[in-house]
Amino acid sequence: MKIALAQQNYHIGNFELNTKKILDGIDRALTAGAELVVFSELCVCGYPPRDFLEFNDFIAKCDEAIEAIKQKTGKIGVIVGCPVRNSRKEGKDLFNAGMLLYKKEISGTAYKTLLPTYDVFDEYRYFEPSYTWNVIEFGGKKIALTVCEDLWNLSDNPLYRSTPMEQLIRQKPDLMINISASPFDYDHDDDRKEVLRANVQRYKLPLIYCNTVGSQTEIVFDGGSLVFDAKGNIMHEMKYFEEDFVMIDTNISSAEVVQNSKITLEDLQHLDKEMRVAKVKDPEKIIDYLTDENNIKQIYKALVLGIKDYFGKMGFSKAIIGSSGGVDSAVTLALACKALGNENVRAILMPSQYSSGHSVSDAEQLSKNLQNPYDIIAIKDIYDSFLKELSPLFKDMPFGVAEENIQSRTRGNLLMAIANKFGYILLNTSNKSELATGYGTLYGDMAGGLGVLGDVYKMQVFALAKYINRDKEIIPQHIIVKPPSAELRPNQKDTDSLPDYAILDKILFQYIEKRQGPKELIAMGFDPAVVARILKLVNTNEYKRNQFCPIIRVSSKAFGVGRRMPIVGKYLS
Amino acid sequence: MKIALAQQNYHIGNFELNTKKILDGIDRALTAGAELVVFSELCVCGYPPRDFLEFNDFIAKCDEAIEAIKQKTGKIGVIVGCPVRNSRKEGKDLFNAGMLLYKKEISGTAYKTLLPTYDVFDEYRYFEPSYTWNVIEFGGKKIALTVCEDLWNLSDNPLYRSTPMEQLIRQKPDLMINISASPFDYDHDDDRKEVLRANVQRYKLPLIYCNTVGSQTEIVFDGGSLVFDAKGNIMHEMKYFEEDFVMIDTNISSAEVVQNSKITLEDLQHLDKEMRVAKVKDPEKIIDYLTDENNIKQIYKALVLGIKDYFGKMGFSKAIIGSSGGVDSAVTLALACKALGNENVRAILMPSQYSSGHSVSDAEQLSKNLQNPYDIIAIKDIYDSFLKELSPLFKDMPFGVAEENIQSRTRGNLLMAIANKFGYILLNTSNKSELATGYGTLYGDMAGGLGVLGDVYKMQVFALAKYINRDKEIIPQHIIVKPPSAELRPNQKDTDSLPDYAILDKILFQYIEKRQGPKELIAMGFDPAVVARILKLVNTNEYKRNQFCPIIRVSSKAFGVGRRMPIVGKYLS
Repeated sequence: MKIALAQQNYHIGNFELNTKKILDGIDRALTAGAELVVFSELCVCGYPPRDFLEFNDFIAKCDEAIEAIKQKTGKIGVIVGCPVRNSRKEGKDLFNAGMLLYKKEISGTAYKTLLPTYDVFDEYRYFEPSYTWNVIEFGGKKIALTVCEDLWNLSDNPLYRSTPMEQLIRQKPDLMINISASPFDYDHDDDRKEVLRANVQRYKLPLIYCNTVGSQTEIVFDGGSLVFDAKGNIMHEMKYFEEDFVMIDTNISSAEVVQNSKITLEDLQHLDKEMRVAKVKDPEKIIDYLTDENNIKQIYKALVLGIKDYFGKMGFSKAIIGSSGGVDSAVTLALACKALGNENVRAILMPSQYSSGHSVSDAEQLSKNLQNPYDIIAIKDIYDSFLKELSPLFKDMPFGVAEENIQSRTRGNLLMAIANKFGYILLNTSNKSELATGYGTLYGDMAGGLGVLGDVYKMQVFALAKYINRDKEIIPQHIIVKPPSAELRPNQKDTDSLPDYAILDKILFQYIEKRQGPKELIAMGFDPAVVARILKLVNTNEYKRNQFCPIIRVSSKAFGVGRRMPIVGKYLS
Repeated sequence: MKIALAQQNYHIGNFELNTKKILDGIDRALTAGAELVVFSELCVCGYPPRDFLEFNDFIAKCDEAIEAIKQKTGKIGVIVGCPVRNSRKEGKDLFNAGMLLYKKEISGTAYKTLLPTYDVFDEYRYFEPSYTWNVIEFGGKKIALTVCEDLWNLSDNPLYRSTPMEQLIRQKPDLMINISASPFDYDHDDDRKEVLRANVQRYKLPLIYCNTVGSQTEIVFDGGSLVFDAKGNIMHEMKYFEEDFVMIDTNISSAEVVQNSKITLEDLQHLDKEMRVAKVKDPEKIIDYLTDENNIKQIYKALVLGIKDYFGKMGFSKAIIGSSGGVDSAVTLALACKALGNENVRAILMPSQYSSGHSVSDAEQLSKNLQNPYDIIAIKDIYDSFLKELSPLFKDMPFGVAEENIQSRTRGNLLMAIANKFGYILLNTSNKSELATGYGTLYGDMAGGLGVLGDVYKMQVFALAKYINRDKEIIPQHIIVKPPSAELRPNQKDTDSLPDYAILDKILFQYIEKRQGPKELIAMGFDPAVVARILKLVNTNEYKRNQFCPIIRVSSKAFGVGRRMPIVGKYLS
């Protein structure tokens, strides 16, 4: 059978755009002679639709899209993902369905059984799990159609008590098709391939896996759709971080093998049900892992796509960035120029009396290298006007965090004023190490519409800077080598307030990504006092992160929708 | 049997405090001669513990608390709520358990079956549902012990496909006990009583219902624990919005009847499974419903408790508020003075050149009435210093939203500077109507640690002002009667940008609380153009609300953790 896979970038709730993309994909598949074309999970409405699903009107729009798509299915089978009403009174109102449309009818449906609710997922909030399982017949073949997570229950320690393929295999299918919306993170990018291959090996069936691509606010979907033969060999691997379209022929089993299979079920044991087991257990090797060149390269691509799609889907084209002469803003600026075009990214340099001379010269050189527009606005006079008005209250109290924050918030106010005046979105430059420890000023350097580096540890920011400079010096070397500083008081250094980033980032990774508590961290060899200090910083700063903008997610546990902590909680704090 | 009910206010993750409260409750029950004492859902760790549950260390702390409590159970049965490990490899790691401790042993457990994931709830994220059901034997009685939501599946249109009491009733229990963490909202305050009574009527058993009390960041638990006889009469109704303790005797069925039962199962039909059906369907009556005196009185109590517990649990005692002379800041100031004591609430008056003369005099009179400290800081000079530095960029472009926002953000910066200097938490005064429509400035009037009025529509704010003035004039009448204005440009009025609040609030209530879409709203008689304009305002301002502080939840759908919208979504926008 000739099958087309359409790996597309949808826009949540934009039914006009999504329907057009799907119809275009059908046309292309028809032209290429496909008998069947496969799209991804919830493609008609975009994934994740979240609480839009609670509106009858939204579901009616999904139904209308299906009607429009049906009309194109006279001569081709079309597999799409769509929310579908639960016709029974009991249970949640909706199913998350995979649907075969053919001859202008719905000729088969498969409801998702395993509804993820960990990390960024909330599917059980909206959907009833399936409780009946049937293969779908098409072109003389029996297809075991499943939706995303339904294939992810294979480990020794499964998250769910049932596995839909164990039901479907009894009906002797010829082929597995899985439609997905599976997000990228550098920590699990290989797992997907392993899990899919393990399904092929267990059920001894070819597998067609169609994933979505594109970024939706904070979640980056990386595509990389896959076709396996029944032996677990990869016959096709689609592009990562961009749309793609391929034709395959299930009858040609001698097709070129892209990757041979060596994975066995035992290799999946690191896939603990909660994904909390670190692949790298030796603390000495964590930084190497975090800054591994392949990981950094993928993070780079994900961040560029994340910026590009955020602007495109919000209907904006131009960004503004506070450029401090430090490595975080330099990397953010370079990423934004790549995503939006250098002419669309405006840097604002805002030195204070505490800024070192090189801060401005380094930032100027950076914008000259990137060829993006920049302006310089000194903040001293504004800062002094704040101090003057506050002097009846502050009297002769010593300089402290209040004065530091006034400077940072003055910069935030200037950036937002320019953004409001000219129609920019402010990109935030805070990194994950800072956000974790609360080393930032609410409404100051924590302002912005999108957090570009909020899921990237400081040591990874340095590695990104090196990666950006791989062919020529874009980020001036001095920006990379000088000691990090907020420059809000004389001779300030980050290390005045925080442990060395090489230590800090290891502990943060184990605590945040891997949910290792104080005992586990101390058992790994970390200093108990440093562990206690860092965990307390993380836990007492939830209130700050709670007001932070969306962060492009590249790790297995980003701050934001996927990490839900009680703000008034008193634990390790 | 003599049973004590302990309705207590826990602190999430504060094991020392929670364990002490439970041990004190056991002492009190022993002294009063109780055979059994009942505490609320997840009392050992506080509810909701959220992602703290993903840490082994956190679960170990729960286990240690249970060990400590067990030691007190030599002569009394103790029912507590606690997360418990799932001993099977399949399924999620934890159960949400009700547990009977007696003679220093765990003598019975009941795992929660129905795990809510709507609105603010995320229980299926952490917990495996129960799949076995057994009554617990104590003192010669069979107790059907359930946890919160387990009794909430009675309507014609149930959210879950199974009902634990249908299993338990087969074992012929003598008594139902339900332990809960059931939040307050003014829209459903009566539903709880109705649902519990419907269980009593269906199963013909007495019911002891122990709820928690207190506010946890944004969620207010209102207590109001209940005891029903087997006929559905209320024998005891515990206090609302405060801790309480009662002794009951299940043998004395002739005890004083507090409320007779008239509710039947048919009365539950308004409890649609998604709680989206409005009790008040006539648009003309919505404002009356929103501002109903009993609702306003309850909202007042919830907000005072919400402020008090936020400060207490965060370890702060003093608040700062920007006092504009408008009704929102006036009501917030009055609530804060009630919650924290007038001497602990500092008002800052920050007139601009666009402020009317009465703004300062009204705000001064308010603070004189409340007897709280206040200061006046003019913002003109700071604002001018911003304009001066920006003039090379802004040139002679006309005054616009950028200039308005500079003023608002200057106020935010001043308030935060004073808060940082003296250790205040900034209370935010934005109301729900403003937040819904995006009528506010990020990092300006949207700054603050806690949103006091963020779940209160403007028409309800006026009603709260009247309620606050019920005995004497606290809020000057002029603040209540003058037309609302942000005063960021000459002669500005809210109605320049927004429909009348009396219309706006009706549409917002139906759209936000009741998830009525454009078609439904137009069918109710609202102007299609106004509906489209308001829905678009709501949907295009998700990015602003995403950076807002926690909001004390008093309605059935507050902005924040209970309402999850895609920011880049393009729907009705």
